[in-house]
Amino acid sequence: MNGRKLVAVPITPERFAPFGQVIGTLPERRQAMNAARFERFDHLASIDIEAADDGRPTLSIARARIATALPYRVDMVERHPLGSQAFIPLAAFRFVVVVGRPGESVEAGDLQAFVTNGHQGVNYNRGTWHMPLIALEAGNEFLVVDRAGGGNNCEEHVLAEPLTLCLE
Amino acid sequence: MNGRKLVAVPITPERFAPFGQVIGTLPERRQAMNAARFERFDHLASIDIEAADDGRPTLSIARARIATALPYRVDMVERHPLGSQAFIPLAAFRFVVVVGRPGESVEAGDLQAFVTNGHQGVNYNRGTWHMPLIALEAGNEFLVVDRAGGGNNCEEHVLAEPLTLCLE
Repeated sequence: MNGRKLVAVPITPERFAPFGQVIGTLPERRQAMNAARFERFDHLASIDIEAADDGRPTLSIARARIATALPYRVDMVERHPLGSQAFIPLAAFRFVVVVGRPGESVEAGDLQAFVTNGHQGVNYNRGTWHMPLIALEAGNEFLVVDRAGGGNNCEEHVLAEPLTLCLE
Repeated sequence: MNGRKLVAVPITPERFAPFGQVIGTLPERRQAMNAARFERFDHLASIDIEAADDGRPTLSIARARIATALPYRVDMVERHPLGSQAFIPLAAFRFVVVVGRPGESVEAGDLQAFVTNGHQGVNYNRGTWHMPLIALEAGNEFLVVDRAGGGNNCEEHVLAEPLTLCLE
């Protein structure tokens, strides 16, 4: 495959902070709930939804029909100017994301790639550029928390130079 | 155990409609996304969050520290007047809920119990009375989508007569 190579590195809250939040059970976030029957890890993501045009948060499920093998050619990214978007695996599996900081322009050199540990989700901040969702295995299911409502909430950008996405 | 017996029946969207939504992959809700790499099941829950007092939706994870065995004595229910509350299992496991319609008063005879099929979550409408979350196995993890912010968003009610919750 041609194009610049982009290697996915393990995701951490610190590395991912410019793009959004990692949704996982960090020990330092633990609190007791329901008379200590449960541990609760609160406020793992900033749900930021534009209310204009009947905007509201919504829950959906996305299920992969096909697996995407790596290396994988990335030639397009998208962003959602009207809201954050979270993807949380509904079982233990890893997935790979490609992201760029919010801003008017983005090209291949601005992008970073991350791989989860199988027990993490992500929340993209409003406007974060990202590769459309891919799954490493068919059948992988994600809970999606994003925006329902009117207005144009998806902008796509074709990269001048494609990337080849790989795992380490 | 004493008290009225309440048997949990399989949850369905229709049975649960007075209390909230069942979050699952109903075939009739399927749509293609990302160039047909994924199926997406949209708008599975009504996220209804009071914005006053800095109210906003938030994502959390709740992990069971202990298993709750059935039959189980239910002597208290709670409701959240300022927002809906969703629980979505982060792996395939069943769980049991006890619910009553929103309203000022609730007693044992007003409550119903449901059990999921292992691949379903629930969203309680704002104000729905419910038993505090229990898990059938320790370690069960739920994604929680509810309200962060000020104000009193939890009201508890001790039942005049306790219930004994059972599976069929």
